[in-house]
Parts: sequence; structure tokens; C-alpha cells
Amino acid sequence: MAKIIVSDSADLVDRWIAAIKDRRPDIEAVPLAELGDSDEARASVDYALVWQPDPGFLASLPNLKLIVSVGAGLDHLTNDPLLPRHLPTVRMVDPGLTQGMSEYCAWGVLSLHRLFVPLLNSQASGAWQVVHAPIASNTRVGVLGFGVLGSRAGEALQALGFQVCGWSRSAKQHDSIPLYSGDDGLAEMLPTCDYLVLLVPATPDTFHLIDADFLARCKPGVGIVNAGRGSLIDDDALLEALDSGQAGGAVLDVFHQEPLPSDHPYWQHPKVIVTPHVAALTYPETGGEHVVAAINALETGEPLPALVNWDRGY
Amino acid sequence: MAKIIVSDSADLVDRWIAAIKDRRPDIEAVPLAELGDSDEARASVDYALVWQPDPGFLASLPNLKLIVSVGAGLDHLTNDPLLPRHLPTVRMVDPGLTQGMSEYCAWGVLSLHRLFVPLLNSQASGAWQVVHAPIASNTRVGVLGFGVLGSRAGEALQALGFQVCGWSRSAKQHDSIPLYSGDDGLAEMLPTCDYLVLLVPATPDTFHLIDADFLARCKPGVGIVNAGRGSLIDDDALLEALDSGQAGGAVLDVFHQEPLPSDHPYWQHPKVIVTPHVAALTYPETGGEHVVAAINALETGEPLPALVNWDRGY
Repeated sequence: MAKIIVSDSADLVDRWIAAIKDRRPDIEAVPLAELGDSDEARASVDYALVWQPDPGFLASLPNLKLIVSVGAGLDHLTNDPLLPRHLPTVRMVDPGLTQGMSEYCAWGVLSLHRLFVPLLNSQASGAWQVVHAPIASNTRVGVLGFGVLGSRAGEALQALGFQVCGWSRSAKQHDSIPLYSGDDGLAEMLPTCDYLVLLVPATPDTFHLIDADFLARCKPGVGIVNAGRGSLIDDDALLEALDSGQAGGAVLDVFHQEPLPSDHPYWQHPKVIVTPHVAALTYPETGGEHVVAAINALETGEPLPALVNWDRGY
Repeated sequence: MAKIIVSDSADLVDRWIAAIKDRRPDIEAVPLAELGDSDEARASVDYALVWQPDPGFLASLPNLKLIVSVGAGLDHLTNDPLLPRHLPTVRMVDPGLTQGMSEYCAWGVLSLHRLFVPLLNSQASGAWQVVHAPIASNTRVGVLGFGVLGSRAGEALQALGFQVCGWSRSAKQHDSIPLYSGDDGLAEMLPTCDYLVLLVPATPDTFHLIDADFLARCKPGVGIVNAGRGSLIDDDALLEALDSGQAGGAVLDVFHQEPLPSDHPYWQHPKVIVTPHVAALTYPETGGEHVVAAINALETGEPLPALVNWDRGY
């Protein structure tokens, strides 16, 4: 009997196991915490569905054949210097996660667009400050990172009435959203966007993508929604742009250090909304389908869904 | 030459006049404030595009043939006991206003659904409190009031992934949104909705529609978005429901008294977001089309768009 081990936050592990057993009762799904330390136990593991595994742990499983990331991001895996990169690894694709991300991006852009960020931050003062928002159809949102999450977020924003465009490292196509790619495409797109939604993966290439130079190339007053990773933003540069007015506001879900330290200036900044890394969660009930699809593909020799290319970094 | 007088907030009057002149250069459009007090001046007015006219003013115009409300709501007119109800009056229908309202309703429901209301109200404390939202597709939003504004707001929420239903006083149809009507329909719908969006018109029938009895019939933890009028809600009943948990949160844009007094408990309530009556604004550039369409219809004897039925109250 094939075995999969599952690690995730405590309240989700049982739901993952149920979601896998529902679809593949012939697979033994066990919490990583219950695996035990013996060589025999480690040798019994075929598949791993993991979130933030201890460094070296995956490398210690001699018969591991597949790694499935609980999240769409992979930095929780690449933090492990011993990560067995020769094994097939798949990113999470979950309709629930995709849905949550599009909700967050829509909410974040609307919060900026409707000029609600300073209102929300001063509500307790009881001051009635009427603000007039521009028309969404005259307002352009650029989605940086245009994979499964970015395209759905872009579609949700378009359905709300915004002009939407997208950018990705390599060229892509979309029926109704104009797309840009590469460095030239970014240079062309940036000055046209009132808001930017960050959904690019965290790779060495994207570390501090949003720095002083990037912000200076944006439209003055640009609003930033970061639902990707904290490493994408040079916080000092963003704070400086917010204070100078070059950036109009920011809705931030992810940070270099999480939890965001309670004395970080973002918490008190009138132009910033902080949310605690909740933009999108993977739901076992909907994500279980992808886990089982990856296992099925591996077992039957078909192409794996959302297979990671480590040369590319995602 | 026919004459229309225009009253609105100061920064908008010139934009209205330009929007009317663009479409009907043969009509003289003048700010109400510049009309003057003489009988001759009053007799020269054919049409009135107004926001909160002084009581008795419209009745003092002997040749007035048409009243156009700057807003979708009419309470700013019915506050005038001398309102000439025998004259045709049309509500505002403006794509910009419709768009703004759907944005606000989407934003308000997302703020409640993603459990962000308490987070936003405590951001300055710097506490990282992770909250897990349910899946939108398992979540039902009821839109109360299903005219032009309600149907578009419902469609925007549906595009975001929510289950959506609607209610109106009289029976209506929609391609993709199930609708309820009348008292029986309301009784059937209320217990099924996780969130309610209030867009019913302010009439004697809807005064304090949201009272203790109404809230007790809702699903426990119901979230309320009020983008209609402050008179729809019995504030004491809502505050009691918020404190008991029968209501989970509220996003409120309109109030019995505006500006909302700075000592009102809504401002400080952890489950309430207050916005300063900005859910939707009429944009002269887009709403001008409707003003001119109403004038054209009157002049050619065709049916007036969005004509008010004073027996019904809207």
C-alpha cells in the first residue's frame, strides 16, 4: 500500500487526509508528526504533501517519489538546502486558493481605488471625511505574475469594471486581458498602471523587484497590492515612496519576516493596510483533487500537473 | 431657449453644465445659485436637475416641467413638503453611479467575508491574528432591492464567486440570480443568507426595515452592508445584534444623521466599518446622458426613463 505523509497547520492535516482517502482509499495517508523516526518508517514513505518541512527531512526519505507543495509558493521548500531537487515536485493548484487570491486582490485594489485606506486607519477618530473616487473604467490595474492565480485575479478585477493588464517573465496570451512580458514589457506597462497587484513567484530574480528604481518608473501615486511574497518588496524603498507620494497606498499580506514585527512602520502607516498572510489558503476539500491527480499521473506515467522547473525556480 | 437649473455640490455644478451643453447646446444650463430671486427668473426655468433643493423652491417655479434627481435616492426631494408631485420626476440612472455602487457592495461583502473588519479596526495594535475565511462558493449574499443598482451589484458579487440571491417588493426576473419578492419571499430568503446588501429605497415602508425582529430572522452571524439609506436600520437593534453575535459585522455608508456624530458607537465598534456616504457618486460625464434623455423624452412625448411613481414612493 502506497503511503503519503501530510504536514500542514494542525487543524488542516485531518482534512487533507480525509480529502485524499475520499479519492484514493487505497493510499495510506498519515500525519507527518506520526511517522516516527525509525529507518523503516522513513523507508515506507512514497509521497509527501508538505508545508515548511524541516531542512533535511525530505532528503532523509529513501523511497520518496513525489513532493507536493501545500502552497502555490515554493520558498517554504527552497529554504531547505538539502531539498531533493531531482524528485518531481508539484506546486499546489486549488480552486479554493485561486478563488481566495482573486477575492483578496479585488478587495485590495478596491480598498486603494475607493481611497478607503486612510479612512480605515483613522476610523476611530470619528472624522467624516468625504472622498471622491475616480471611475474604475478609467483606472488601470497591472497584475504582475500571470499564471493560474494572476489570470483569475485579473479576470475578477475586469469583471468589477477596471481596465486590467498583466505581465509575466515569459510571453503569454489571454482572451480579454492585454499582456506584457520580459524587461521591455515591464518598462512599457509600469507607467500606465494606477495599481499593481504582485503575484510573481519568489525567486532570486524577483528579490526586491519593487525597489526605488522600480517605484520611480511607476505612475505617480501608484497603489500596490502584495499578495505574493514579502521578498518582492524593498520595504525601505516602499516606505519612502509612500511618504513622498510616489506611491499612493499599499495593501500588504506578506512580509520579509512573518509575523510582521509589532514595531514595523507598516502597522501604523496611514497609507498601508496590513493583513496577516491570509490572502489565499489552500482548502483540502478542493485542493485534494490536485494532490491525487499528481499521484495518479506519476503512477501512470503521464505528465504531472503544475510540475516545478527548478531551473526556472517555479 | 429652454432653461435647466442645476444644483449639486459646488465642484460638480460646472461639470453637469458642460455635460448637458455637450449633448444639447440649445439648452441654457445655469447654476441654481445664479438664477436670482425675481419672478421673471423663476418663470424662465423649464427643467431642474437638483440635489437637496430648499423646501418650497421647486414649487416656486411656475413653468417647471421636469425634475431630475441628482441621486438614485429621492429622500433629498421628499424632505420638501411642498414638492410638486404632479410634475414628472426622474431618478438618476448613471453608469458611473451604478459602477460605484457595485464596487462598494463587492468591497463591503469581501471585507466581512474575509473577516477583515476586526483586523482593520485593530491594525494599529500591531497584532498578527490569522483568520481563515470560508469558501465564497459556499457563502450566500442576499441583495435587498433589486433595481438597476441591486442587479449590477449582485452580478459583481456573483462574478467574484459568491452565491447571490435578490429580493424586491414586487416580483422580478434575472437570468442567473434567483429572486424573491414580497413579505413571504423575504421570510424565505433571510435565513439562507450569510450577508445582506441593503439597496432598497427609503420609503415609509422601509423605515427601520432592519429592526430586532428582522435581525432575529437572519442567519446567526449575518453581515450587513448598507449602501442604501440610514433610515433602513434601527441602529439600537443592529448594535445589540452585533454585541450578541446575531450579527457578525456591518459595513455602513449611510446613517440617520450625516455626518455621523463623532460620538456615535459605530465609529469605535470593532465589528463595524464606517464610510462617509461615498458608496456611489453620480458622475456628470456619464450621468449627463440620462438627464438629456429625460429632457428629450419629455419634449417628444415619449415615456420618461426612471420616472418616479409617487404612489409607490420611488
